[in-house]
Amino acid sequence: MNYEAQLDSAIGKLHEEGRYRTFIDIERQKGQFPHAVWRKEDGSEQPITVWCGNDYLGMGQHPVVLAAMHEALDATGAGSGGTRNISGTTVYHKRLEAELADLHQKEAALLFTSAYIANDATLSTLPKLFPGLIIYSDELNHASMIEGIRRNGGAKRVFKHNDLADLRAKLEADDPAAPKLIAFESVYSMDGDFGPIKELCDLAEEFGALTYLDEVHAVGMYGPRGGGVAERDGLLDRIDIINGTLGKAFGVHGGYIAASAKMCDAVRSYAPGFIFTTSIPPAVAAGAAASVAHLKQDQALRDLHQERAKVLKLRLKGLGLPIIDHGSHIVPVIVGDPVHTKKLSDMLLKEFGIYVQPINFPTVPRGTERLRFTPSPVHGPQEIDHLVGAMDNLWSHCALNRAEMAG
Amino acid sequence: MNYEAQLDSAIGKLHEEGRYRTFIDIERQKGQFPHAVWRKEDGSEQPITVWCGNDYLGMGQHPVVLAAMHEALDATGAGSGGTRNISGTTVYHKRLEAELADLHQKEAALLFTSAYIANDATLSTLPKLFPGLIIYSDELNHASMIEGIRRNGGAKRVFKHNDLADLRAKLEADDPAAPKLIAFESVYSMDGDFGPIKELCDLAEEFGALTYLDEVHAVGMYGPRGGGVAERDGLLDRIDIINGTLGKAFGVHGGYIAASAKMCDAVRSYAPGFIFTTSIPPAVAAGAAASVAHLKQDQALRDLHQERAKVLKLRLKGLGLPIIDHGSHIVPVIVGDPVHTKKLSDMLLKEFGIYVQPINFPTVPRGTERLRFTPSPVHGPQEIDHLVGAMDNLWSHCALNRAEMAG
Ligand SMILES: Cc1ncc(COP(=O)(O)O)c(C=O)c1O
Ligand SMILES: Cc1ncc(COP(=O)(O)O)c(C=O)c1O
Repeated sequence: MNYEAQLDSAIGKLHEEGRYRTFIDIERQKGQFPHAVWRKEDGSEQPITVWCGNDYLGMGQHPVVLAAMHEALDATGAGSGGTRNISGTTVYHKRLEAELADLHQKEAALLFTSAYIANDATLSTLPKLFPGLIIYSDELNHASMIEGIRRNGGAKRVFKHNDLADLRAKLEADDPAAPKLIAFESVYSMDGDFGPIKELCDLAEEFGALTYLDEVHAVGMYGPRGGGVAERDGLLDRIDIINGTLGKAFGVHGGYIAASAKMCDAVRSYAPGFIFTTSIPPAVAAGAAASVAHLKQDQALRDLHQERAKVLKLRLKGLGLPIIDHGSHIVPVIVGDPVHTKKLSDMLLKEFGIYVQPINFPTVPRGTERLRFTPSPVHGPQEIDHLVGAMDNLWSHCALNRAEMAG
Repeated sequence: MNYEAQLDSAIGKLHEEGRYRTFIDIERQKGQFPHAVWRKEDGSEQPITVWCGNDYLGMGQHPVVLAAMHEALDATGAGSGGTRNISGTTVYHKRLEAELADLHQKEAALLFTSAYIANDATLSTLPKLFPGLIIYSDELNHASMIEGIRRNGGAKRVFKHNDLADLRAKLEADDPAAPKLIAFESVYSMDGDFGPIKELCDLAEEFGALTYLDEVHAVGMYGPRGGGVAERDGLLDRIDIINGTLGKAFGVHGGYIAASAKMCDAVRSYAPGFIFTTSIPPAVAAGAAASVAHLKQDQALRDLHQERAKVLKLRLKGLGLPIIDHGSHIVPVIVGDPVHTKKLSDMLLKEFGIYVQPINFPTVPRGTERLRFTPSPVHGPQEIDHLVGAMDNLWSHCALNRAEMAG
């Protein structure tokens, strides 16, 4: 067996398809975000503006978050030193879980090292708790949900994206007595569209299914206290398990589920991905808790976020660029080809100091390769002007089509 | 479907078997570790000594680690704000990867959010890179390896713990042309025994298999630069993929693999568990890098660690307690029953302020339930005296057997 040759061919395939990923090495400067420094391979530096981050509200540099982290570092040290069960549960973890349970108006919350592992571990453990469970999963669900659903080979039905009729047909085809769970997202991060949460909950109720909602791209940003789209729409009590991250709008790191006390207790007790891993550092938990608490009160920041996204979309539409607009904070511009997308991204970075990663297969379907902009409250009118000017320039330069009608 | 009743029965089962886990809420105080505070359910507090943590060398409170974290927080903020590919690669991540590649004398290293996900993601991705791969896995491998090996339903053979003859028989039974990988650990954390690394590498060579070594309970602690048991034994170049954690002896959080540049590049490009998750906070990466760099030079700390473990084992043996001693830094005392183990642990905590979690099934086989002590350089003679006295007292009190011969 020639292992080298196999690796060459696996990597070569990505190069051939134009989707080999090169990481851009950036250094954010606290208080200056979205301005940052790009450290090139040759060691030289170039100032850039980050337009593709998921620190959606700039909380990663918020003084309350940083103060909480510094304090916890001073009080308690660097790591937790153990799994949650074996010396790795601290007051910081407990406080954060209480803060999150309150955020989602649930009895309990359970911390994981990331929302990825929260999805993976929870969804792969539920079939152990509910033998015979059938999971109905939106086809555009995130990779971490797909991995979790697949893991133990339990029964699954993939329904067409946001398609209630397709889901209903699949629910009707199964044994009415079988335990069921419908898994979906509130904001799909690549198109920025919303899941029909209310209608999905209605179907779940009709068919006696549990509901599992990934609010990773919504927590902190939607709802009067940042509880997500389900909070905004008054649907919190209809969701059995909510998944969220502490690494995007909350600006720190880690993930969680919020659910009934019993559900959290059972997942806590049976999920290997929760049990057998070092808990997050107390300082990370402290920073996240400060961020969650702050965002429960800072509606102005949420409003400014939405405002900035609206302005950017309006202006890109004005140029006739093919943007997708579902009314969320995410601004995708479709290019439709991996090589063009990479080229545009390279030119934006090198010529304009605008950093936006190309998004390719498998993150999005082939033929829908795109640039995905993430405006935030710290992306001001100046940054927006600069971006819009650069896009106008490059679109003409590259002779790309402008949409007849954007939207 | 009565979901509540199902949850009740899942949780009830654990109570019945005496293995329902209650987390102890502790607060370490920087600079005072292993001394800490136990925050009880009723809000009252009791001083305790942590005897079951995995911050094996006390690096979680080391000034160089804390300084690096404070600095990075001040320079760059709280979270990375993105996946590695989408704005989440920083100089801190790159520096840490370089530090780790150097530690293991490999071309490259790849960071994950934990060693759990490093194992899971890597082992589940290798069959995609090497179609038809057969994974030979030691039966006592950690849950994260088992989950990774199981995940995609690839071919696997579980060989008896450390049993070279059994492994050989299994290798011989398979197609010589099939790609193969042998997965094992250097220090098995529950018994504290070592894997026969050299002999396993010999077998791998003979049968053309790749080697995968989990050094989670060895990095920082073994080898002249803390590169693990493979470094100590001069076997680094015979291991294809090394897995390690930043959350135990290094005192912070996160995990990694170290391997050839091509191997890391392929895993980086194909593993969902690497790709689709927010990268660790820059400050965490900075703290971990400082810890790794420090431990490359601090042999005295490693020596003190081994010394303390020897003393504790000698003294517990002197009392005739049934400890397992394979010459590593881990000190398990077998109780052999989940209810007794829990009771001993409760009495140690409440009456003596000694915190050691009971270790039950499924972490260890039924009938081998145990207390697992983890002495460290910061557990001085006084702490050891206190522990030995308490164990002597309780063992008599509970009329437990003393071994005829310990070891
Ligand atoms: C052998 C082994 N491998 C991997 C892990 C996972 O490491 P981490 O805590 O970084 O997820 C652990 C324990 O946590 C372990 O004991
Ligand atoms: C929809 C969705 N769920 C879960 C995750 C995982 O979150 P985390 O970064 O905390 O692992 C992501 C992205 O990272 C995501 O986009």
